[in-house]
Amino acid sequence: MKLWTFLLLILSFILYPSTSSSSLFKHRFLRGESSSRKEIETEISYETKYFKQNLDHFSFKNDLPTFPQRYLINTDHWNHSSMGPIFFYCGNEGDILWFAQNSGFLWEIAPLFKAMLVFPEHRYYGESVPFGSKYEAYKNATTLSYLTSEQALADFALLITHLKRNYSALHSPVVLFGGSYGGMLAAWMRLKYPHIAVGALASSAPILQFEDIIPPQTFYDIVSNDFRRESLTCFNYIKQSWDEIASRGQTNDGLAQLTTTFKFCQQLKSSEDLSGWLSSAYSYLAMVNYPYPAEFMMPLPGHPIKEVCRRIDGGSHGTSILERIYEGVNVYYNYTGEAKCFELDDDPHGLSGWNWQACTEMVMPMSSSPESSMFPPYEFNYSSFEEECLEEFGVKPRPKWITTEFGGHNIHATLKNFGSNIIFSNGILDPWSGGSVLQNISESVVALVTEEGAHHIDLRASTKNDPSWLIEQRATEIKLIQGWISDHYQKNKVIFDM
Amino acid sequence: MKLWTFLLLILSFILYPSTSSSSLFKHRFLRGESSSRKEIETEISYETKYFKQNLDHFSFKNDLPTFPQRYLINTDHWNHSSMGPIFFYCGNEGDILWFAQNSGFLWEIAPLFKAMLVFPEHRYYGESVPFGSKYEAYKNATTLSYLTSEQALADFALLITHLKRNYSALHSPVVLFGGSYGGMLAAWMRLKYPHIAVGALASSAPILQFEDIIPPQTFYDIVSNDFRRESLTCFNYIKQSWDEIASRGQTNDGLAQLTTTFKFCQQLKSSEDLSGWLSSAYSYLAMVNYPYPAEFMMPLPGHPIKEVCRRIDGGSHGTSILERIYEGVNVYYNYTGEAKCFELDDDPHGLSGWNWQACTEMVMPMSSSPESSMFPPYEFNYSSFEEECLEEFGVKPRPKWITTEFGGHNIHATLKNFGSNIIFSNGILDPWSGGSVLQNISESVVALVTEEGAHHIDLRASTKNDPSWLIEQRATEIKLIQGWISDHYQKNKVIFDM
Repeated sequence: MKLWTFLLLILSFILYPSTSSSSLFKHRFLRGESSSRKEIETEISYETKYFKQNLDHFSFKNDLPTFPQRYLINTDHWNHSSMGPIFFYCGNEGDILWFAQNSGFLWEIAPLFKAMLVFPEHRYYGESVPFGSKYEAYKNATTLSYLTSEQALADFALLITHLKRNYSALHSPVVLFGGSYGGMLAAWMRLKYPHIAVGALASSAPILQFEDIIPPQTFYDIVSNDFRRESLTCFNYIKQSWDEIASRGQTNDGLAQLTTTFKFCQQLKSSEDLSGWLSSAYSYLAMVNYPYPAEFMMPLPGHPIKEVCRRIDGGSHGTSILERIYEGVNVYYNYTGEAKCFELDDDPHGLSGWNWQACTEMVMPMSSSPESSMFPPYEFNYSSFEEECLEEFGVKPRPKWITTEFGGHNIHATLKNFGSNIIFSNGILDPWSGGSVLQNISESVVALVTEEGAHHIDLRASTKNDPSWLIEQRATEIKLIQGWISDHYQKNKVIFDM
Repeated sequence: MKLWTFLLLILSFILYPSTSSSSLFKHRFLRGESSSRKEIETEISYETKYFKQNLDHFSFKNDLPTFPQRYLINTDHWNHSSMGPIFFYCGNEGDILWFAQNSGFLWEIAPLFKAMLVFPEHRYYGESVPFGSKYEAYKNATTLSYLTSEQALADFALLITHLKRNYSALHSPVVLFGGSYGGMLAAWMRLKYPHIAVGALASSAPILQFEDIIPPQTFYDIVSNDFRRESLTCFNYIKQSWDEIASRGQTNDGLAQLTTTFKFCQQLKSSEDLSGWLSSAYSYLAMVNYPYPAEFMMPLPGHPIKEVCRRIDGGSHGTSILERIYEGVNVYYNYTGEAKCFELDDDPHGLSGWNWQACTEMVMPMSSSPESSMFPPYEFNYSSFEEECLEEFGVKPRPKWITTEFGGHNIHATLKNFGSNIIFSNGILDPWSGGSVLQNISESVVALVTEEGAHHIDLRASTKNDPSWLIEQRATEIKLIQGWISDHYQKNKVIFDM
């Protein structure tokens, strides 16, 4: 596997914590099967419904099929006579149930706001696939071609319009929520459909991770800094480990040794597979570096990077680098200690929705700097990227399309007098924060930044271990959302009074 | 021809002053052939260029062809070192050359602003047709399916991005202009692509002419009022004429008599054809009821409705209603007196771009009220409309799509704190004004309304006969545009200074 491919896959799947059936990281994302994991998920109750969507909203070919978009809905606290708000989570690249379960914040504040909750699934994910099955939908570039963010936003717009009509909720304000890619959708939706929703909480939404807006090394630099701030020796051990792994892989019996050291169930086919497996763990650890035990991707202790580095730095004088790395990464892959050996999926080219999106619109250039990053040096090369996408999907990316369609360059000047009611919330520990909006743009397009926060932690359910900055952050969000809603009622008073 | 079909065609073509080869009103729109007409067109000089566009911006099918989008460009007054603005006319449903020639305002103010002028052609019109020829592009619903406003806006966004790069004009502010449907595109573009353009002058843009936002009788009521304000008797003669025409059409030899009275070159096939021909003239007269002689659609005197009514009301005591009507309508169809007889195209179902757009996205419900309108009573019936579109194009309209995609309902509350820098200019005599924005929405989303103005008169070249209100209106527009541009330079100062 070429290095760039490995990086592409890492990047692709970082935003893709789903149950994709054929990804490199498949086994790492599978979740919710063991009863022990279910226990800490937010208790949620909802109805599952389906809404018929056109496959293409922007052309009028009449031979295209429709598809059923799944959505979860809860109206327990809402009634239309009080024109309660609709909280709408912009489903991202995975099964919507998983996002609903991991967005406890919405469930907790719904009673306070007397809000309806709606969790629509993103087209081509979970059950919301066209052409009758995921197999058919993912068959080729033609069937996949309608998997784009613009189509997804139009799905949301039509679903909201439908719900407002069906629930006699014409004057109910809609507030958008989303994390990660879902946060990007929430922000873009507020900008593109201001008539549909009064505001958006876009958590950890890297809307600037495109083209040349931010330096390409940003992501891996942040991951690296997360490790360095815990321990410089830990950072250095990791940085040194890549050469060690590569040279070990080239020796006789080296792959077998690596297989044994890292306890893989099957023998490694290349040392790069191991590097990918490790890089992936470090990146995810930076994302879910939460201050309390959580299970967003894997069961982990609080401050997991601290624990990883404690184990890497520990050991006696004679402990080898690779043994240290194994001990460290065990925190991520096997914190419960239940795994006897690890599986490494050998199908990196398997079809997956986010891979398609990354090969069409979501081209996020990322490099790893030889100076500042603890990862193997790597420079993003668009030509190789394009070539690989042509090979894998027969599709040519449009790397400048997202900034043309949604903007990004010079966003502060652009949105200073344009748009309103968007919260960009970010934790600085989250590697995606570098591609998001970290400074207020205007009075109502604001950045909430927490020094100790990780990937969309604010959207998660509260816990008894929440630090005060997180409690404050959520309180600020609630206050801002309340402001949007009162403003909506105020502006529409004439209509309501009629 | 059913009455509703006739009305549909009227409505369709009112926004479509083009050289469509097969429309009911073809002969009425043909223009620019006689040298006498060319004389009053604005003197313009430009380069003609072509930009390769993807046929579908919102999906990634790789078997779709590209097409060359034509644009006219003039850089005489612009240079990139001063970061002069780019004035971008959002081409609408016709040949772009015609719009460029009839938008004298832009050519006149370009030197003042040191602006680049760009007139891009709307996809599927003029020379900018996909599939190699208009014949192929208009063949069926599949080939026509990419003729939508969203695709056209994306074309504009990509072209602007390309021009900025090619002319080293990254920091040049772009100002959008457009009249009628082009004005709708300009307003929508400013709302959807605020990162691409700093403001929009949307002249006579009926962005609210959809669904139930305004009463369906608005358009014909305004036309009727334009006649009534000149003369109540004139209004009444016209109102009475329809029954007269219908009953005459049913008598023996009635169609022959009507053919003679109205001097058609070929015999009428139905009295409804005559009614359509007359209704169309009245509607256009209301649109081009300019205070000075002009040739926007036909060569006409200043205040043409006054002249029409003078002739209808004139005549001796014994003059019949139909003779009066003939005298009146002659002002519209034959003011130069050159026509010996009139042609009536009998191919109302001919393919045309705007007809397709009206049958897909641009569903504008319009009725004629028995009480307030001088036209034959008519109630818009969506089912019949849909049926006819299915019959003509095999396509099912999406009548709620435009308001879902672009908004419209409750626009004042929606845009009060959202969006900026849009001028909605309207003349109250223009029947399209009823579907536009006639009150300020915010400090920078403003309405400029003139009591005596007609269809996008402000975009036309100045004349020595311009009334003072028109001179003032244009001065206000210039001042507002200057404000947008200085604001842009101010906000981007940090960047420029680097």
